[in-house]
Amino acid sequence: VLVVVALNPALDVTHHVHGVDWNGVNRPSAVRATPGGKGLNVARTLHALGADVRLVGLAGGPTGATLREGLRAWGVQAELTQIAGATRRTFAVVDSLRDTTALFNEPGPQISRDEYDRFRAAYVDALAGCTAVVLSGSLPSGLPPSTYADLTMLAAEAGGVPTLLDTSGAALLHGATAGPAMVKPNLAELAAVVGSDFQGLESASDTATLVAAAASLRERGPGAVVISLGADGLLAVTGEGSWLARPQPVAGNPTGAGDAAVAGLAHGVVLGRPWAERLRHAAALGAAAAAAPAAGEFCRSDYDQALAAVSVTSLEVG
Amino acid sequence: VLVVVALNPALDVTHHVHGVDWNGVNRPSAVRATPGGKGLNVARTLHALGADVRLVGLAGGPTGATLREGLRAWGVQAELTQIAGATRRTFAVVDSLRDTTALFNEPGPQISRDEYDRFRAAYVDALAGCTAVVLSGSLPSGLPPSTYADLTMLAAEAGGVPTLLDTSGAALLHGATAGPAMVKPNLAELAAVVGSDFQGLESASDTATLVAAAASLRERGPGAVVISLGADGLLAVTGEGSWLARPQPVAGNPTGAGDAAVAGLAHGVVLGRPWAERLRHAAALGAAAAAAPAAGEFCRSDYDQALAAVSVTSLEVG
Repeated sequence: VLVVVALNPALDVTHHVHGVDWNGVNRPSAVRATPGGKGLNVARTLHALGADVRLVGLAGGPTGATLREGLRAWGVQAELTQIAGATRRTFAVVDSLRDTTALFNEPGPQISRDEYDRFRAAYVDALAGCTAVVLSGSLPSGLPPSTYADLTMLAAEAGGVPTLLDTSGAALLHGATAGPAMVKPNLAELAAVVGSDFQGLESASDTATLVAAAASLRERGPGAVVISLGADGLLAVTGEGSWLARPQPVAGNPTGAGDAAVAGLAHGVVLGRPWAERLRHAAALGAAAAAAPAAGEFCRSDYDQALAAVSVTSLEVG
Repeated sequence: VLVVVALNPALDVTHHVHGVDWNGVNRPSAVRATPGGKGLNVARTLHALGADVRLVGLAGGPTGATLREGLRAWGVQAELTQIAGATRRTFAVVDSLRDTTALFNEPGPQISRDEYDRFRAAYVDALAGCTAVVLSGSLPSGLPPSTYADLTMLAAEAGGVPTLLDTSGAALLHGATAGPAMVKPNLAELAAVVGSDFQGLESASDTATLVAAAASLRERGPGAVVISLGADGLLAVTGEGSWLARPQPVAGNPTGAGDAAVAGLAHGVVLGRPWAERLRHAAALGAAAAAAPAAGEFCRSDYDQALAAVSVTSLEVG
């Protein structure tokens, strides 16, 4: 079983409007309300890949009830700890006339110490017989930045279950020191945690700078650092070598492509794929997800096509 | 008891953002989710005025559950018939930098014949001992345009309970023929139902044209026609005379001002106020509601101040 942790999931509400009036009344032609947030996107992608996934996390309020219903409809096995606060919404306004998307992310509920303790007990139960853990997304307010470090150490204590950590800021910095098998920042998240030594990090073209920055983050504890580069694919610095996995360019929506790559990396760990193959599959999944209309979705034929087109190159580390 | 009917209420979600990025990610600083829609605004205002209100209507899904919770928190007595579909949301994005508001109104649930019949039985029960009925808002899909006519006739059969109808289009045209005590279109709604004979109806300044249009609608059945003119107040054509009630100009949000005026008119019926006083109070409530930050709210001192400043003039009908 692959355990995916979603501490701050969201109910994603999407309104489609042709030509939005930003100072007036709009009548959306299509409305969707689907479970969302990084952890849920990862779980959904893994489920679609045929992996045995169990989602754990926190949910509450009427928005939490809708989220649970949506997960049932998808067939994703979920054990979400009930909280007093209400699960946050995200609200996306897609304007098909201007080809723009405005996203509004609500702050989300406050989590109490008791709620975290109840979640933690459910998480420890889920670790029994688990092959890998994905820790994904921001921490809700009320939880300390050491939370992912705590969950990483619990996995290590449960027979050395490897963890994949995909978060940012203080949660990433703290989590990295607990020795997860892998962390997956994007370029901006990497730049924020490795600090001012790497001014060139806004560009994906300077692989030497990227490798040095990833190596610098890796020294803090993680077994591997994989940087997601959007349409430019993935760059990995591991104990076994460094690679760049670059897909064919695709036009599309980058939302959720990083989550799909995390799902691909986790699936590769479970299947025991060597690093180069793991990265090839993850980059292809990211590209297929970018081509799909909604986060957490991809088309199998896009994935197969992207897989054939990914180039994986080993990088010399200077 | 004053019965307010809300067949298509909404959960109003408001996001406050300072400087919206219409093609990017926004983090709203303040999020509110409150019961909304015209009927609920009217009921809330009547409740704040100290009237004995009972809200009846239709609600369902997790959004319906949140709506019921909000009504309990307000202390408004509500008996909403449970439906299979989910109560609609409205999303408002308020940009405090640009001083703009974008509103997104979801289409709302489909109502079955059986659901309407169950609501209708609850409505008939509520009519016992009732002094006036307010029928407010658009009809949800599935209900025929004759729905408000049906509810008006049921009120008449229940010992002649007077009804106030505030809707538009076909629902207004059909409802008017059943003889409600009052209909309250705004300028655009009046123009839409009286048709091409009144081309000058876009302006509130030509009172003779307005009176003629209102009289033309009144011939179809309603006891009185009250036109809400936004900041220009109310114009009434009744069996006892015609009046214009004009408040002092206020800067503010017109959303909900029409609903506050309806609440004022209904309260006036219950209190037995003569027309001129009824209109004075309704126009003042509309002005106070326009000055309040949210629909359905007003400040008592704004109301008192506006009340002193409203001018009510009797109109000669040519």
